[in-house]
Amino acid sequence: MPAFPQRAVIREVGLRDGLQSIRTIVPTERKIEWIGDAYAAGQREIEAGSFVPARLLPQLADTAELVAYAKTLPGLFVSVLVPNLKGAERAIETQADLMLVPLSASRAHSLANLRKTPEEVVDEVARMRAARDAAGSKTMIEGGIGTAFGCTIQGRVDHADVLRYMQALLDAGADRVSIADTVGYAGPAAVRALFEKARDIAGERFWCGHFHDTRGLALANVYAALETGVARFDATLAGIGGCPHAPGASGNASSEDLAFMLADMGIDTGIDIPALLTLRAKLAQWLDGETLHGALALAGLPVTYETITAIEA
Amino acid sequence: MPAFPQRAVIREVGLRDGLQSIRTIVPTERKIEWIGDAYAAGQREIEAGSFVPARLLPQLADTAELVAYAKTLPGLFVSVLVPNLKGAERAIETQADLMLVPLSASRAHSLANLRKTPEEVVDEVARMRAARDAAGSKTMIEGGIGTAFGCTIQGRVDHADVLRYMQALLDAGADRVSIADTVGYAGPAAVRALFEKARDIAGERFWCGHFHDTRGLALANVYAALETGVARFDATLAGIGGCPHAPGASGNASSEDLAFMLADMGIDTGIDIPALLTLRAKLAQWLDGETLHGALALAGLPVTYETITAIEA
Repeated sequence: MPAFPQRAVIREVGLRDGLQSIRTIVPTERKIEWIGDAYAAGQREIEAGSFVPARLLPQLADTAELVAYAKTLPGLFVSVLVPNLKGAERAIETQADLMLVPLSASRAHSLANLRKTPEEVVDEVARMRAARDAAGSKTMIEGGIGTAFGCTIQGRVDHADVLRYMQALLDAGADRVSIADTVGYAGPAAVRALFEKARDIAGERFWCGHFHDTRGLALANVYAALETGVARFDATLAGIGGCPHAPGASGNASSEDLAFMLADMGIDTGIDIPALLTLRAKLAQWLDGETLHGALALAGLPVTYETITAIEA
Repeated sequence: MPAFPQRAVIREVGLRDGLQSIRTIVPTERKIEWIGDAYAAGQREIEAGSFVPARLLPQLADTAELVAYAKTLPGLFVSVLVPNLKGAERAIETQADLMLVPLSASRAHSLANLRKTPEEVVDEVARMRAARDAAGSKTMIEGGIGTAFGCTIQGRVDHADVLRYMQALLDAGADRVSIADTVGYAGPAAVRALFEKARDIAGERFWCGHFHDTRGLALANVYAALETGVARFDATLAGIGGCPHAPGASGNASSEDLAFMLADMGIDTGIDIPALLTLRAKLAQWLDGETLHGALALAGLPVTYETITAIEA
């Protein structure tokens, strides 16, 4: 049986992928409280927002301010999503630690959502890399390949397409690559197969999996990915977010459920789960009326939880 | 990487483990419709109920009638739960294909719930085996080891205890053994570790995993179990059931979500998922007001589902 990583990172993307699909606009001071509390609970990688025009995503208009605050927290690795060169220039200006550039492996989804072909996104990444290097910036570039397990528009997406775009992103100057199940089509056998091939191509530069829980498989997918050696996962507190193509369905992998699964597996995330659950309760108040997800908050930690952590320590 | 089984069985336990923890009493004619529709949707193993005194579980008082009906369906393997020799005698009389005898690996849980020590349950299994053989009956005996991953009363349960009771059950004459996460404490690393050891002891006689989704890990646990070669899982339609110790929490692994995961993995279950979803919609009407679970019914099948099944066929 394959070994599991000893440590794993839960990258909190609730402030971006979660809030962008929620009606409620969360005030900047609340978001700062969220980042501060997540940091206090041990989270060390947070996606603060997205550098897209404020008219498109008013919920994320305060991204620069959030990056500035997050950068004051020692050891916090701060990422942002950027759709194009203009966004990348803002990420470089704000000294974000990483900018994530989405590419859709489904051509149909790429044209519908990004209004670019996947090849045009690869070209844009080359321009971002040039801009980054010219500025003497340390902001890393991550190419995030979405709709990697299928797409509601195009249907089937071949692994060969995903891997070809992964190689192209690396060739264009991406420092890191990741794979996202944008619409919740991934199952664990497909994850294991695709992630193994991706590791063969990109090695340690393939570093993150992004799963939605649309059909209840997010945590099974994480488990399958862990067996391939991948040890970084996007997740959102209370599983907020979700797929506009599947109304009523679950959102992202829930940070707290994922933290519990990893702790139970003896994999160190550095996260204080009770503190994270306290933050989740705050978030539930801030998002009053929105649909939240995640099983742990309902069930509570097992009575054996202290034993689990005692064994690890 | 370990191979997956080519086929797997979803044993529908909704009529027993689901209904026993639900307030609504479902009339016998509805249960017969459920069994008939589940059979038509391709399910070939169904737990019809439990031979316990009707005053304890009035919802399951019609178990003998359900077994009689289920036995008329060609190729349907019909199981019942029996807590003691008296229940076993009824299972033998009704010619059920299998009787499941629960044993709690947690001594505290065993005393609180079964009013017997685990050793007394083992002795009872020996008496059931003698009665079965004396009657010339073909009803198989399955020893189901519950609270195998921990317990709300006792806390930690050692793998060594679970494996010791497994050996004792086999020695006492059980034809099959299985492991249940009665309270939803299992995580996939623990499942992998315990199931590997159980297969070493019991081989093919260790044949079933029973997971609750209390903390969102039921499907990840199934995936881990599949890697150890186990290919039979208890599940309930709409994930009904659940743990009285975790009010509000999710119930059993949901049959329809599990069927989808297995189909997506290319593992044949013989189940027609759209037909199962139609039955689930009926169940939702019958159980109006009760909490149902499962993600697939909300999200629907992916547009690629036809492709998945076409590739398999």
